[in-house]
Amino acid sequence: MAAPKAFLKKHRKKRLEQGHPWVFPGEIDKIEGDPQAGDIIEVFNHEGHFLAQGFFNPESQLIIRVLTYSAAEVNEGLFLEKIKQAWKRRERLIPDATSCRVVHGEADFLPGLIIDKYEDVFVVQILSLGVEVRRQWVYNAITRLFKPRGIYERSDVPVRKLEGLPEREGFVEQPFDTKVTVIENGLRILVDVAEGQKTGYFFDQRENRAALKPFMTGWGAGRGIEIGENGQPFDKKGKLIKNPFWDGAEVLDCFSHTGSFMLHACLYGAKKVACVDISERAVEMAKNNALLNGFLHRTEFFAVNAFDFLRDQVKEKKAWDVVILDPPAFAKNRQSLEGAVRGYKEINLQGMKLVREGGILVSASCSYHLSADRFLSMLQEAAADAHKVLRLVEFRRAGVDHPVLLGSNETDYLKFAVFEVFNRN
Amino acid sequence: MAAPKAFLKKHRKKRLEQGHPWVFPGEIDKIEGDPQAGDIIEVFNHEGHFLAQGFFNPESQLIIRVLTYSAAEVNEGLFLEKIKQAWKRRERLIPDATSCRVVHGEADFLPGLIIDKYEDVFVVQILSLGVEVRRQWVYNAITRLFKPRGIYERSDVPVRKLEGLPEREGFVEQPFDTKVTVIENGLRILVDVAEGQKTGYFFDQRENRAALKPFMTGWGAGRGIEIGENGQPFDKKGKLIKNPFWDGAEVLDCFSHTGSFMLHACLYGAKKVACVDISERAVEMAKNNALLNGFLHRTEFFAVNAFDFLRDQVKEKKAWDVVILDPPAFAKNRQSLEGAVRGYKEINLQGMKLVREGGILVSASCSYHLSADRFLSMLQEAAADAHKVLRLVEFRRAGVDHPVLLGSNETDYLKFAVFEVFNRN
Repeated sequence: MAAPKAFLKKHRKKRLEQGHPWVFPGEIDKIEGDPQAGDIIEVFNHEGHFLAQGFFNPESQLIIRVLTYSAAEVNEGLFLEKIKQAWKRRERLIPDATSCRVVHGEADFLPGLIIDKYEDVFVVQILSLGVEVRRQWVYNAITRLFKPRGIYERSDVPVRKLEGLPEREGFVEQPFDTKVTVIENGLRILVDVAEGQKTGYFFDQRENRAALKPFMTGWGAGRGIEIGENGQPFDKKGKLIKNPFWDGAEVLDCFSHTGSFMLHACLYGAKKVACVDISERAVEMAKNNALLNGFLHRTEFFAVNAFDFLRDQVKEKKAWDVVILDPPAFAKNRQSLEGAVRGYKEINLQGMKLVREGGILVSASCSYHLSADRFLSMLQEAAADAHKVLRLVEFRRAGVDHPVLLGSNETDYLKFAVFEVFNRN
Repeated sequence: MAAPKAFLKKHRKKRLEQGHPWVFPGEIDKIEGDPQAGDIIEVFNHEGHFLAQGFFNPESQLIIRVLTYSAAEVNEGLFLEKIKQAWKRRERLIPDATSCRVVHGEADFLPGLIIDKYEDVFVVQILSLGVEVRRQWVYNAITRLFKPRGIYERSDVPVRKLEGLPEREGFVEQPFDTKVTVIENGLRILVDVAEGQKTGYFFDQRENRAALKPFMTGWGAGRGIEIGENGQPFDKKGKLIKNPFWDGAEVLDCFSHTGSFMLHACLYGAKKVACVDISERAVEMAKNNALLNGFLHRTEFFAVNAFDFLRDQVKEKKAWDVVILDPPAFAKNRQSLEGAVRGYKEINLQGMKLVREGGILVSASCSYHLSADRFLSMLQEAAADAHKVLRLVEFRRAGVDHPVLLGSNETDYLKFAVFEVFNRN
């Protein structure tokens, strides 16, 4: 039986030809054959030139999601090969990572499929009907390639409704202990893949956390500490300093969640890190992770609203060498963007006021709806109001295990900037 | 005697308050005192609030260039301190670098002053009248902080006319041998600070060159090479391969200039690198650098037009694992932008056609007038025409020794992208 075929209209934006992996209903001229929801369909342009094969789902606005540009048969072997290629790519780009995102949906040419590796445990999230009906192929591929201790499914997200799918969560086969100690840059981070946010831990900032390194030491001289002849540090009054982290940064980590930035700050030599998160549970997790890595004596924890905490600190004229702001997505959709920008501006305005002259502001946003340009202009407005000048040291996106197809900006959501902060009259 | 004062207009874009370091003539309401060209002038807003001190030059469109947000006296000590801070910043951010840009003009709060360190030799470029009349302070600071073998001035750029300054080039004090062997990531690169382009070598891509590393090995399997039981590689016909770089990339390096990308490619394990540059002199330099590092047997050189070379390679159906395109600035001004974009698109279109399935395209542009967005959309158009899909792996700017003030995009010129290239029907 011949595969069903979709022919696209002559007059449309040549989105698919520009690398975009989705076809919308209005772009289709006619459909041949009788494709069922979830079937593979061949896509042609108006001249009958073959373009791609994709998942067909008439219930979704993404009526076709491109799976392959090849005309070869779509079978279990293709899924296995794609997952294998995706893993080989991570092995090349992040050879030391034992935990990372293995498959990132469309950008790994597997539309709507997320696979995260937490050491020997795998978490799967399915966001397309096309993968849903073939999910056994995914489980089989994971089992064959990685021989995992267990696979857990976290398809418990409302966005599945757009594909006509109910939420689902649970063990794929045998139950197992869902607590995993993830190793990242030598740190140990306790994750419960059944209970955490998203699929448990945010891999997308691995490289951003590592980017903290140069800023965590070298602050002693600015505090007036002098080095004696025998290499020992003395304070302004000439008293010997016994804290081995005397040269380390004093770090304020807002929206600290499981404490991943705090852990890296300590690893790289911070003198102390204050973690602020409104969630008691998040604070407990962060505290546990500090304990697990031997950092408890350098950390403190505040289960309070970060907005209030920042304002209070400014009132009390507190100062830090490094302030980190990694809030959750304030802008959930385009409509809420302007309100969200006010929120981002408020925390950044207060945050940069707390940075000592020449110190560091680390600011992130994971709202897709906030563009990189708007993110930077928000920061510029905050700096103008705070009488600060910002110098950009690093501007980063999501890590290499969250790739982006050029022409498919939907997946380009994370902004991460490191600034030096200077006073202005 | 009181310092001269400039009062800005009430109704103007609050550029200076947003961290921008320049005042234009139309923004000034009145000037008090009788400032001479090159003098320090205090800047106030319309309400008499002190904003900054800067260099005054009525002959320039940049009538005031902000030197400091402090009201403290501008003297030789301030210049020394600023240069010292700039160096401390490089020591923190690029601790292994023995050669780098030490002062990057406005972004280091020294408007119009460039200082490049080539091991023990310093190159100074002065682009503002304010620094010009105080240049002895700069030379003194360099001598005091670094005890250099020599200082060479490369103020031989036409842009000095905008400040009413003639071009100047030569030894600042005693003559010395202007050839320097720069060490970068362990590589040796021969530079003549009196003769090279700009101040001799491009430090702004240090981190970008290092970013080649993961892509220079891991290509053997794709060529059908298999590993025998004793770990030795065998080709498709079962013949033992003796080339120790059998797993390395085959790299095409266009606009190779002094060969800095080629050297890094070889360092990181490339099997072979072909360098293409229209300049016989550049090719000679690159060849010398390959020789100096023991890479001559892995390199080849073509002193030809890269546009022609790329088109010929496509005609001959050649293929490479990695294609690098690092052209000179095609867009010298806003007027020439569209022509320049056609040039960029042409080389990228041909370049990506030469990349094997799943291989790498490295594409850079140093045209300030080409925005990052336009750069990426140009690449997307080229990919559409070439029937390729591009996946972004890295997007980088100039290195950390070329900082950018937020609100002063003039200094944000370099785009550097690494893509994986896939075929599309």
